[in-house]
Amino acid sequence: MATDVEKGRPAGRQSGYDRDMETRAVTAIRMLAIDGVEQANSGHPGLPLGAAPMAYALWSRFLHFDPTDPAWPNRDRFVLSAGHGSMLLYSLLNLTGYELPRDELKHFRQWGSKTPGHPEYGLTPGVETTTGPLGQGFATGVGMAMGRRVLAAQLNREGFPVVDWRVFGIVSDGDLMEGISSESASLAGHLQLGHLIYLYDDNHISIEGNTEIAFTENVEARFQALGWHTVGVDDAEDLDALSAALAAAVEDPRPSLVRVRTHIGFKAPHVQDSPKAHGTPLGPEETKLTKAAYGWTAPPFTVPAEVEQHLLGLAQRGKNAHARWTALYQKYGAAHPDLAPVAEKLFWGPHVIPTTPAELPVWHEGDSVATRTASGKVLAAVADAPGLVGGSADLAPSNDTRVEAWGDFEPGAVGKNLHFGVREHAMGAALNGMALSGLRPYGGTFLIFSDYMRPAIRLAALMHLPTIYVFTHDSIGLGEDGPTHQPIEQLAGLRTVPGLYVFRPADANETRVAWQVALAREDGPVALALTRQKLPALDPDRYPVHLAARGGYVLREASSGHPRVMLLATGSEVSLVLSAQERLEAAGTPTRVVSLPCWELFRRAPKAYRDEVLPPGLTARVAVEAASPQPWHEWVGPEGAILGIDHFGASAPYERIYAEFGLTVEHVVQLAQQVTSGGEA
Amino acid sequence: MATDVEKGRPAGRQSGYDRDMETRAVTAIRMLAIDGVEQANSGHPGLPLGAAPMAYALWSRFLHFDPTDPAWPNRDRFVLSAGHGSMLLYSLLNLTGYELPRDELKHFRQWGSKTPGHPEYGLTPGVETTTGPLGQGFATGVGMAMGRRVLAAQLNREGFPVVDWRVFGIVSDGDLMEGISSESASLAGHLQLGHLIYLYDDNHISIEGNTEIAFTENVEARFQALGWHTVGVDDAEDLDALSAALAAAVEDPRPSLVRVRTHIGFKAPHVQDSPKAHGTPLGPEETKLTKAAYGWTAPPFTVPAEVEQHLLGLAQRGKNAHARWTALYQKYGAAHPDLAPVAEKLFWGPHVIPTTPAELPVWHEGDSVATRTASGKVLAAVADAPGLVGGSADLAPSNDTRVEAWGDFEPGAVGKNLHFGVREHAMGAALNGMALSGLRPYGGTFLIFSDYMRPAIRLAALMHLPTIYVFTHDSIGLGEDGPTHQPIEQLAGLRTVPGLYVFRPADANETRVAWQVALAREDGPVALALTRQKLPALDPDRYPVHLAARGGYVLREASSGHPRVMLLATGSEVSLVLSAQERLEAAGTPTRVVSLPCWELFRRAPKAYRDEVLPPGLTARVAVEAASPQPWHEWVGPEGAILGIDHFGASAPYERIYAEFGLTVEHVVQLAQQVTSGGEA
Repeated sequence: MATDVEKGRPAGRQSGYDRDMETRAVTAIRMLAIDGVEQANSGHPGLPLGAAPMAYALWSRFLHFDPTDPAWPNRDRFVLSAGHGSMLLYSLLNLTGYELPRDELKHFRQWGSKTPGHPEYGLTPGVETTTGPLGQGFATGVGMAMGRRVLAAQLNREGFPVVDWRVFGIVSDGDLMEGISSESASLAGHLQLGHLIYLYDDNHISIEGNTEIAFTENVEARFQALGWHTVGVDDAEDLDALSAALAAAVEDPRPSLVRVRTHIGFKAPHVQDSPKAHGTPLGPEETKLTKAAYGWTAPPFTVPAEVEQHLLGLAQRGKNAHARWTALYQKYGAAHPDLAPVAEKLFWGPHVIPTTPAELPVWHEGDSVATRTASGKVLAAVADAPGLVGGSADLAPSNDTRVEAWGDFEPGAVGKNLHFGVREHAMGAALNGMALSGLRPYGGTFLIFSDYMRPAIRLAALMHLPTIYVFTHDSIGLGEDGPTHQPIEQLAGLRTVPGLYVFRPADANETRVAWQVALAREDGPVALALTRQKLPALDPDRYPVHLAARGGYVLREASSGHPRVMLLATGSEVSLVLSAQERLEAAGTPTRVVSLPCWELFRRAPKAYRDEVLPPGLTARVAVEAASPQPWHEWVGPEGAILGIDHFGASAPYERIYAEFGLTVEHVVQLAQQVTSGGEA
Repeated sequence: MATDVEKGRPAGRQSGYDRDMETRAVTAIRMLAIDGVEQANSGHPGLPLGAAPMAYALWSRFLHFDPTDPAWPNRDRFVLSAGHGSMLLYSLLNLTGYELPRDELKHFRQWGSKTPGHPEYGLTPGVETTTGPLGQGFATGVGMAMGRRVLAAQLNREGFPVVDWRVFGIVSDGDLMEGISSESASLAGHLQLGHLIYLYDDNHISIEGNTEIAFTENVEARFQALGWHTVGVDDAEDLDALSAALAAAVEDPRPSLVRVRTHIGFKAPHVQDSPKAHGTPLGPEETKLTKAAYGWTAPPFTVPAEVEQHLLGLAQRGKNAHARWTALYQKYGAAHPDLAPVAEKLFWGPHVIPTTPAELPVWHEGDSVATRTASGKVLAAVADAPGLVGGSADLAPSNDTRVEAWGDFEPGAVGKNLHFGVREHAMGAALNGMALSGLRPYGGTFLIFSDYMRPAIRLAALMHLPTIYVFTHDSIGLGEDGPTHQPIEQLAGLRTVPGLYVFRPADANETRVAWQVALAREDGPVALALTRQKLPALDPDRYPVHLAARGGYVLREASSGHPRVMLLATGSEVSLVLSAQERLEAAGTPTRVVSLPCWELFRRAPKAYRDEVLPPGLTARVAVEAASPQPWHEWVGPEGAILGIDHFGASAPYERIYAEFGLTVEHVVQLAQQVTSGGEA
């Protein structure tokens, strides 16, 4: 890995700053923030009032940003993990010249504005990640710092530090109480992510009162135990002290936590240091008094021209850095023509990994392969894709997520096999952070433990990030580990996350298709639900498995071509219904088998195609899935039957559990015969 | 709160132990464990081999248990948080005389056995909580220790420490990597839960390799920062050192972590200190070599008689304590006749809180009340119920979960208002631990953040624990906080958790019914989904709201008594469909409105009742819910329509969001007219 060159950041305490102007600039940030909240009559004034100086110190003296190009690949990332303080960020973005006009601040929290209640990635220029659910920003930033290290290892070369950015952020006590931030902090400390620097807005107030009612741990000592550098600043108004602390953080090779003792609602005379300042507008009277306390006389949403100029000027340092970087990047292209196209793609996309059928493994009649195993083989086949990176939450041997061709991602070694530890939630957020960095990350765990990372999966979907989840051990088919490990309701739950593709392939070849879909997707996450147990391969010469890419298809038509009943299934239950089909056909009932591996894709198919696969007139339908039946009502009307599991699992060899739970060929045949008194195609 | 009397535990290093016998007893525990795994050809031999000595030290010298009465209220609790080491626990339970015959060990992980892959509460005598999903046991134990403090405060009196037990446990590196354990540890440290003592099985091995690949934090320093007492034991085989550490832990007023440097798969010659020892049977050859290394010659599943006797004798200390306690409890009944029935109920149940309609608030025509507010008023009305205890994950003012009549639960003060901090997952598990202690706990947060605590909710359902979740801000109706805070898929996800009641009341009076159902339920958890926004009250004089207890009912029949269309809704959308009904009726379409607040209850109603509410012939149905439409297909067939939300929310005043998303009276009317070409009742 190439060594980073120093960016020539200012050394903290410097002369030459216009103290008075700086104070007015900080006040301007505060005043716009409370103006926004007042106008909306909704929002969180307390954080911006307390944290504006640290934000100013960071943005004015450290953060490399260029409002004219928010996608500049080498910009520093700023994460407002305490997303409820969104007006602080919107003020900063507006005042430093981002494409976020003052009018948008006036429409804070209104329909169609670019200033929603919590910052949203993709909606507002300069917002690096969606935050609000506490802990997520913290953990996503850790992922960004991991992504930065992977990118630097791949792209930087002697004299060409084209990847040379840092992750800065502001985190709150709420962020630090959430378990996800502990997981992520432990991981960041372990990995010694020195380019990660968080300011901790230590305001001693949470919604229920003083943090002393629930949060009395020694935060700095905790972070030190996790391998972090920490430093405290007692006077949140002291820009020099803040700068010195940030400079020390930049220097330190460990991730850094800069604890700043702030005062929520600073200078609001009746609500400072009170939970009342947190999530309630100050109201007209308190706003007036607060502005008076700051000596601020400008009308709402206005800033004196010279202060505006000063704040607009803050971007100059970043613009200069951007210009230097552009020159460097041009030379890089000439010096490393092999790497330039890779960099181009990782920096600006498209972030898809195209695959050709020829490069991927195929399985044939007689092969018996768990879909997790097939997944591992597909991964190995696409290991050369530059953006691909991934790992598991300490289940790599079970998830088949390890790529042998890669090294390990560890302190001092930047391979692409990630070891997240038993930290599913941190993994989920880290995947988001890496995807935001331009990589194509995947993460593995058992499907049951998707429950531990749901908030991060949701954010991936909300941000349209192309993360990939390798969820193995996807049903009671995992057997002896028992009900604590057997997913029942997880498929149903994941299928309701808007924009998430849930792909449960029926065999090794559908698994190949699932990976192709996932790697080709750029606008959202994909979850693969894979088996522990072996499944018979569906030979492409006999079955049109390539149609799995449409989300659902006729896997095997009735021999007569005129089905009287239809069997629908996903994953491991597909081979079961294929056997049932044979029995039914032998008994004279023409039967169609439909594989429905990815409903989100199927719903997007043209209606004509869907009606072809599931003819509306053919209401004799039996759906089989070893999971909660809830979602199947969509495909199986009142005249059909659903064979699912609406209770918890059991501990035994899996064949026994299937039998005891009635997931048998005999039962499917019986149900099919029951419903076949219904309609015909 | 009464002070605990000392239990007269042995002071750690004592003479009088038969060292040789103790060593053989520890070996017996180990050998039965690997015999179980071998017989099953499945399971985790490594932990029992490494952790047997610490378990023996604890069970032989500290733990108060009585195998003849596993429900003895004053027993110490033992939590095997590392549930994959279940054979360690099963060995201990069998060898110390619990109702778990040797044959059950031979049926480890088999259908119908009492020895499932991971320990299951309610299935196996002596198993205090279901574990396996890492971190849950740790966090549940914290809840038990909280519950113990609440019970002690309520019941103990001078000279009558009838509640005087401790929580002991064994936790693994995996437990400590999970964020939930950090949350819980921070909470336990804050609350100074001195009766909580965990042995940390520090074996340096996780599934992907040495823990050095992902977990290099200083665990003891972290726990110290969180307010814990810690102590290390370097030789896991040294029973005296283990006892001394445990004695120190018992003495210390803080929660304690006893770190024991163990060796996974100890003495298994080829797999000790290797991930191979974790989750794979040793195999016949390695088993033979391991037994030889221990000098163990007894046949599988057998233990020399004198060793059996010794191990059976370990319970004597607990039995004696039990006898002393029984005597004390009898005197307590005489001395405190007012408290005796309370103790009786809290100790042995039934753990229901009966309510009469008269004691609960009622709302009438013209009242406009958010269901969260109504929930708070119901809570206040039942505040005297002895078992009731609860709080919020730092959202009490928003969740309306605070009971003014109670004090706060803090170090040095044992009120019943809990402050969990911003730690939803720890809260979920703590509720489980408190329910396991005989209390009736509730916990509040926003519905969206139920995602943070799903694994704990699942365990409540799996264990049939009567926990109550107060999930407010249950839809886009929360308005300006935007999509990060607006639940869409959460209702659907919760409805699929087997055994969980999800109750989304339509108004204040249905909220009262929901609480009645929740308080009367003893065999599983109940989630309440409540609004932030005000809703018109459904006057009981006009509407049969008491029928909400059946889960679904005809809220207002078509004026003709012969509906041509049916509108189904829950929660805040009920008032919307009532308005639509008026329009439809005015336009000449007889319309029925059905409120379906709790589907799990409705599904349990007799078919005749369900058919009465939802006549099968009346297929013209429109369902309205501001959430994922997925679950509604169950009630609305192909001829009906579902008005839900299959995308993320938005940030704006809620009325605007409802309008923009088409959740309007006009749209409902339009859909009803579309479907009314269908069947009639």
